[in-house]
Amino acid sequence: MPDGVHEFLTEWHRVVAERDLAALPALLAEDISMGAPPYWAKLQGRDLVHHLLGLVIHAIEDFTYHREWQDGNELALEFTGHVGDLDLQGIDLITLDEHSAIRNLDVLMRPVNGVIRLRETIAPQMAEYLSRGGGSAA
Amino acid sequence: MPDGVHEFLTEWHRVVAERDLAALPALLAEDISMGAPPYWAKLQGRDLVHHLLGLVIHAIEDFTYHREWQDGNELALEFTGHVGDLDLQGIDLITLDEHSAIRNLDVLMRPVNGVIRLRETIAPQMAEYLSRGGGSAA
Repeated sequence: MPDGVHEFLTEWHRVVAERDLAALPALLAEDISMGAPPYWAKLQGRDLVHHLLGLVIHAIEDFTYHREWQDGNELALEFTGHVGDLDLQGIDLITLDEHSAIRNLDVLMRPVNGVIRLRETIAPQMAEYLSRGGGSAA
Repeated sequence: MPDGVHEFLTEWHRVVAERDLAALPALLAEDISMGAPPYWAKLQGRDLVHHLLGLVIHAIEDFTYHREWQDGNELALEFTGHVGDLDLQGIDLITLDEHSAIRNLDVLMRPVNGVIRLRETIAPQMAEYLSRGGGSAA
């Protein structure tokens, strides 16, 4: 595994485990795009993705990583957690850029009822953030 | 990549591309479990999973594989497709047994509206299959 990828993974796992949101932007490319569970259109830009990831990391309880795959700068990280009494299994599909920052992040999850609960949990804070002019969805 | 894994992947891609459902059971362990998008509980057994995969392969149009990860007997296969006008991005998380047959298959997808459309498309046929006593959900 290239040094940059190894360092990224170590820091990513630390940031998520410690919910160290202040350290998160350094792992995101400025022009990051994100395929989030609720929408087909990609979310664009570091500020918006940082904000959404912060909400997700707080909304999913007992967030735990499991299987991990790496192929060059393409990563797949499986996780589980729950929102209230609804379990979630998900995967982060990550493309790193040449600085080992995330250029694209797609998040896929199951089952449907847990994803909908997560969306409902986050929606009010996300709407408030967007109403203040933070970020923009493509 | 071990020979068995390579042979599995070659045959899996052929079966999906050609929708060769008659050849699918040979790739599934008899006691296969499957984490499907709609439910948290695993579906159990070759007959039930074979039937569901057949419905999925027919319901998702322009089914195309993209990124692929492999780590020992653990695979992650990204795909895209659409159900009517709703796009889907998904991933098959596959654990192979010692005979290079699927022991566990988890299917994660986004976005939510596409997953719900897929569930609605398949539900009548799945209900009819289950009412005839085919398979059982855990």
